[in-house]
Amino acid sequence: MTKSKRVLISLILRLLAFGATVAAVVVMVTSHDSAQVLNLTFTAKYSNEPAFKYFVIAEGIASAYSLIVLFTYSQNSLRRLLLILDLVIAMLLSSSISAAVAIAHVGKKGNNHAGWLPICGQVPKFCDHVSGALVAGFIAAILYLLIVLSSMHFILNPLFL
Amino acid sequence: MTKSKRVLISLILRLLAFGATVAAVVVMVTSHDSAQVLNLTFTAKYSNEPAFKYFVIAEGIASAYSLIVLFTYSQNSLRRLLLILDLVIAMLLSSSISAAVAIAHVGKKGNNHAGWLPICGQVPKFCDHVSGALVAGFIAAILYLLIVLSSMHFILNPLFL
Repeated sequence: MTKSKRVLISLILRLLAFGATVAAVVVMVTSHDSAQVLNLTFTAKYSNEPAFKYFVIAEGIASAYSLIVLFTYSQNSLRRLLLILDLVIAMLLSSSISAAVAIAHVGKKGNNHAGWLPICGQVPKFCDHVSGALVAGFIAAILYLLIVLSSMHFILNPLFL
Repeated sequence: MTKSKRVLISLILRLLAFGATVAAVVVMVTSHDSAQVLNLTFTAKYSNEPAFKYFVIAEGIASAYSLIVLFTYSQNSLRRLLLILDLVIAMLLSSSISAAVAIAHVGKKGNNHAGWLPICGQVPKFCDHVSGALVAGFIAAILYLLIVLSSMHFILNPLFL
């Protein structure tokens, strides 16, 4: 594969990852719904749950990083630093999506043993938004795994062939 | 740094990671406690929560992988495959620890907005065990990040110096 093709693939992956992380932030931040339970208004929003706040912060960091890299990618001297930062971002994304999925699962199914009731029946719009954000976050995490693997492949190839 | 020193550092990191993952599995699996609430016996154990089951499975996979690598490390031809597998294990560990921490946080602090009450007041022994397992899991994730970074450093060094 020629060098220009490698750069093109890397840039496309980074552009897609940028889109996915921005979508995840926007969809999660705009998620709110309210319900009347026993004459009390109950409002669900992402900022009520630390795991969802962590998700928004992690996806925000990843989208800012993706944007910066898109504009500085041509500088070859940064290639090594980029690989390490890509790795850290990939781990950050896989960590934040897992925390958010764990909480979303309790929100959807509840946990009988702990007495935690599901809330998605009361605030379906909130749950739909969160699900959408999680799908976008999952795609971003997969894209960053591909970015790390492809960078490693391109850099390591000469050593092994 | 000589090659033998590199191999020694890598083996020590892998041995420590093996110990940490085994400790995480054992401490999490042996965590159970019960409490009397309104004349009903309420038993808390790790298998009641999908995130904790995922944690045990992920740490189990990582400890089996660490053990296999400790016995096959001398084969140089596997170095490239190892780097990719190390990366996958590092992401698996960071993902599982995050999911477990998110649920443990709800167990400890509850979530007022969703009406989920904390359970650690009723089953303190269970919560102590879970906390111990999470600390071991966190150490294992950090060790795997170090393993990936050091492998990358050793393999990439000749290209950049």
